[in-house]
Amino acid sequence: MRIRQLLVKTLREAPAEAELSSHRLLLRAGLVVPLAAGLYCFTPLGWRVVRNIERIIREEMNRSGAQEVHLPALHPIELWEQSGRAALMGQTLFRLTDRKEREFALGPTHEEVISYLASRTIQSYRDLPVTLYQIQTKFRDEPRPRGGLIRLREFTMKDAYSFDTGWDTLDASYDAAFAAYQRIFRRAGVPVIPVAADSGAIGGKDSQEFVFLTESGEDTILLCPGCGYAANAEKAEFVPAPAVPGEPAPVERVHTPGRRTIAEVAEFLGVEPRQTLKAVFYKADGRPVFVAIRGDLEVNEVKLKNALGAREVEPMDEATVRELGLVAGSASPVGVSGIPVIADRSAVDATNLVGGANEPDYHLRNVNHGRDWQATLVAEIALARAGDACRTCGQALETRRGIEMGHVFKLGTLYAEKMGVYYLDEYGERRPCVMGCYGIGVERLLAAIIEANHDADGIRWPWEVSPFDVHVVVIGAGDAAIDAALSEVEQALQESGLEPLIDDRDDSPGIKFKDADLLGMPMRVTVSPRSLERGGVEVRDRATGETRVLSPAEAAAAIAAARSGAIEAGR
Amino acid sequence: MRIRQLLVKTLREAPAEAELSSHRLLLRAGLVVPLAAGLYCFTPLGWRVVRNIERIIREEMNRSGAQEVHLPALHPIELWEQSGRAALMGQTLFRLTDRKEREFALGPTHEEVISYLASRTIQSYRDLPVTLYQIQTKFRDEPRPRGGLIRLREFTMKDAYSFDTGWDTLDASYDAAFAAYQRIFRRAGVPVIPVAADSGAIGGKDSQEFVFLTESGEDTILLCPGCGYAANAEKAEFVPAPAVPGEPAPVERVHTPGRRTIAEVAEFLGVEPRQTLKAVFYKADGRPVFVAIRGDLEVNEVKLKNALGAREVEPMDEATVRELGLVAGSASPVGVSGIPVIADRSAVDATNLVGGANEPDYHLRNVNHGRDWQATLVAEIALARAGDACRTCGQALETRRGIEMGHVFKLGTLYAEKMGVYYLDEYGERRPCVMGCYGIGVERLLAAIIEANHDADGIRWPWEVSPFDVHVVVIGAGDAAIDAALSEVEQALQESGLEPLIDDRDDSPGIKFKDADLLGMPMRVTVSPRSLERGGVEVRDRATGETRVLSPAEAAAAIAAARSGAIEAGR
Repeated sequence: MRIRQLLVKTLREAPAEAELSSHRLLLRAGLVVPLAAGLYCFTPLGWRVVRNIERIIREEMNRSGAQEVHLPALHPIELWEQSGRAALMGQTLFRLTDRKEREFALGPTHEEVISYLASRTIQSYRDLPVTLYQIQTKFRDEPRPRGGLIRLREFTMKDAYSFDTGWDTLDASYDAAFAAYQRIFRRAGVPVIPVAADSGAIGGKDSQEFVFLTESGEDTILLCPGCGYAANAEKAEFVPAPAVPGEPAPVERVHTPGRRTIAEVAEFLGVEPRQTLKAVFYKADGRPVFVAIRGDLEVNEVKLKNALGAREVEPMDEATVRELGLVAGSASPVGVSGIPVIADRSAVDATNLVGGANEPDYHLRNVNHGRDWQATLVAEIALARAGDACRTCGQALETRRGIEMGHVFKLGTLYAEKMGVYYLDEYGERRPCVMGCYGIGVERLLAAIIEANHDADGIRWPWEVSPFDVHVVVIGAGDAAIDAALSEVEQALQESGLEPLIDDRDDSPGIKFKDADLLGMPMRVTVSPRSLERGGVEVRDRATGETRVLSPAEAAAAIAAARSGAIEAGR
Repeated sequence: MRIRQLLVKTLREAPAEAELSSHRLLLRAGLVVPLAAGLYCFTPLGWRVVRNIERIIREEMNRSGAQEVHLPALHPIELWEQSGRAALMGQTLFRLTDRKEREFALGPTHEEVISYLASRTIQSYRDLPVTLYQIQTKFRDEPRPRGGLIRLREFTMKDAYSFDTGWDTLDASYDAAFAAYQRIFRRAGVPVIPVAADSGAIGGKDSQEFVFLTESGEDTILLCPGCGYAANAEKAEFVPAPAVPGEPAPVERVHTPGRRTIAEVAEFLGVEPRQTLKAVFYKADGRPVFVAIRGDLEVNEVKLKNALGAREVEPMDEATVRELGLVAGSASPVGVSGIPVIADRSAVDATNLVGGANEPDYHLRNVNHGRDWQATLVAEIALARAGDACRTCGQALETRRGIEMGHVFKLGTLYAEKMGVYYLDEYGERRPCVMGCYGIGVERLLAAIIEANHDADGIRWPWEVSPFDVHVVVIGAGDAAIDAALSEVEQALQESGLEPLIDDRDDSPGIKFKDADLLGMPMRVTVSPRSLERGGVEVRDRATGETRVLSPAEAAAAIAAARSGAIEAGR
């Protein structure tokens, strides 16, 4: 393929708003052209990489025993109402009406529609287990599309759904998908770690994310250097610092003029923050909630939401605070009424805490749960932070930034029951299928491949996703010896099953070499008067910079060997 | 692959509303599951066929030199306003707004967006010619989704767009796409003929459709058995019957009580319909138009629209008829004023016609153009019908029904100018690209493959699109000899590169044979106690019914030979 046919227009500089390396390189290498916020056109060069990613995904999904299907992107809104997610998705769900005023959603994910298909094709236990997948367009009206291809409003997703007779076989289906994902990311050249995750709006029981650790990531991951425990911040468990021991002492009202924050109160009264009781006010699905947690800890809103079984949790608005007579800065659960009190276990297990007095500028010493106040619900709702102790081995957790690359869920029977996916068991009894779901964003994976495989000069494609195997730079095209050598190279590459991108443009050698580095094929072959003088063509490894002069046939053989070696090693 | 994993649930009967054979067979073979009007889910079995069709299309488009790209389905409405098609597409365009109230369309086709991409990637004549294609989802809110997969509201389309420096090279790009289409349809097993077509809402100059002739088609095609001329009804040219010759005679007012139609007036006055002048009233983009055509002919509204350069033509409403004082049943262009008169050439070339007198129950004899009335515009706007004379060779045209399978257009510079797709020529001058566009509907092609390849028992897949190569029916699974023979068959097939669908369900042989015929793999292999008695396995050709007993190795060899022979013949 000649470079001109690919319409490649490389850029010296990426637009200033492109912050991520992958975003800059996607634009500079001309892989994509932005159309609108969160919407991109793929050029021939960019689309070749996407097709390679899709090929890897298909191969691994098929190998895991999954079957490919295809579902519409237009969903009758009734399906989303049946599952209860029409409201839950909020503005993220693109909605539209047809000419008959019937309402549709553009599918942001396909649990509802795959359930519809499964309910019409699965009949008996003999049909199970089965895993169905598709590689299909999703639409999400994200409030903040971001980072080039990291968060799009229209994107391609490989989504898979497993259907089992029970939880034990779901574990096998889940493990098969998990193993396929590990192979996919390895072949694509993106190092990922599995981390425990919250299952969010999808619902269900267990879930894990595959996270690519990178400083440019938006997600916070807690890692234990001791035992390897890994979880995202929303999900991470930990052991809080121990409480200061002591026998319950009598409550004491103290004047704390102008002290409102935990730090101010603790310092003023000469106690540690872990000896205080923090009050935080929320609304859960519109209902006021009073949260009590030890002063050295923060509330994890996702855990709070899950503990309450709520759809949505948000900080309480000031009007409600006033209406309920809550005293911000001096609030405590002691004497509070008319509002449920949710306590983190830390606030219940400690003795003699300093809490608010529910009047400005006053606090209480020696507040004790059970004696002075009573939680409506006790749960673990504290946010893990760097330095907190690992629940498994006690070592201090570390935090890292990362990007979620894939997500696997054990859904259980939630959707099956709501959407009517039942099978007849061996005894003719009707039972809900036990479901799992598994997703990988294709464009985000493309971005991560670049994040993980680039240097100051440009991209360094892993072999299996590279749009071409070899970048051939021709210097002095038109000269008979050069043209003859180029023909030889082309033929030798073809015979070795290698696909070259040939740059025979009139531009200067410097520009062409820079473009070759930027576009990032794993190997570069230079056909030039100088290489011919030295007895052949120059072969350069993009990753190592190692350069050799070889005959065209030797060059092709060396590249083919490097390619199959790298691919073998990656599988 | 085991049939159970594919979730195949064949039906004895298709729903009564399925009129087309393909629609019935798609449902009976379980290839699709309807979700809503014009929306279908593809099962694993159905999607395998779609993937095969896409593979053929990709191979042939790549072979023709086209480059694959990918464009968003969400289009900022501004692009459609820029091209002028936002209004033109009317309710067929699905529209929606995002969370910031910005309006989008769901792409029904991609001339606008490909132009956007081209305007940002094509710079100079050195980048041209280039043809870009994608295989992508389209959305059209069709008023009447139809016939299973024939007319969908969401479907997959291969759409391609060529960009050239001039009309001469556009011809070459067009011819390359044309040749690719012929190969695609041949390999897919659908006989098509190219017919001249109107270019419709897409705009542009020449266009041809590839039509699959079938009684179930909605389109009317005019064919000349003499010279092979073929065109759809909207476009077809012909020579009207000759006018009755004569010297202009003086106009004569005659009483024609109660005679309003051409037939009534002609009979009453003893003339042929071709000796009369018919008046038809239209509104073109809301503007009244008076059409005069010879009485034996009908108006072709598409030709009329094109002659007027109008977006839309519709019959005139009664209020406007009254307002303009037009006398339906006795109207003629003689003496009409305040409304443009569009004449078919037939009405201008004839002498001494009978026309209306513009008063009830009176007509005029010997009306002659030029003397008695004057057309504002003369054009060929008559509809071709069976029996009309071919313009090329004079033979009587025939009509056939057909389905449009593909469409190729020479767009010229229309979109390039509106959307700003320019290149710099050899002299540094800025010129608009000359464009072509080319489309094939993937699901419609799937339906046509079934229409063209089935019998009373079910589908007969052409080899290249068949979801599996061989349908293996196992009778008596669990018996050691049967299981051993099945293993041998599986191994032999695998070694020959053939993919089997294996039916080892507990059902009766009769049900399994019926399913095999219905599902339609090109070859069936039966492993049964009876076949083993006869010394091997039974190989049956789905198309010819020819049956042989062969060893597993011989069976695999025979099937592989039949497959490659058929594929070679089809290419």
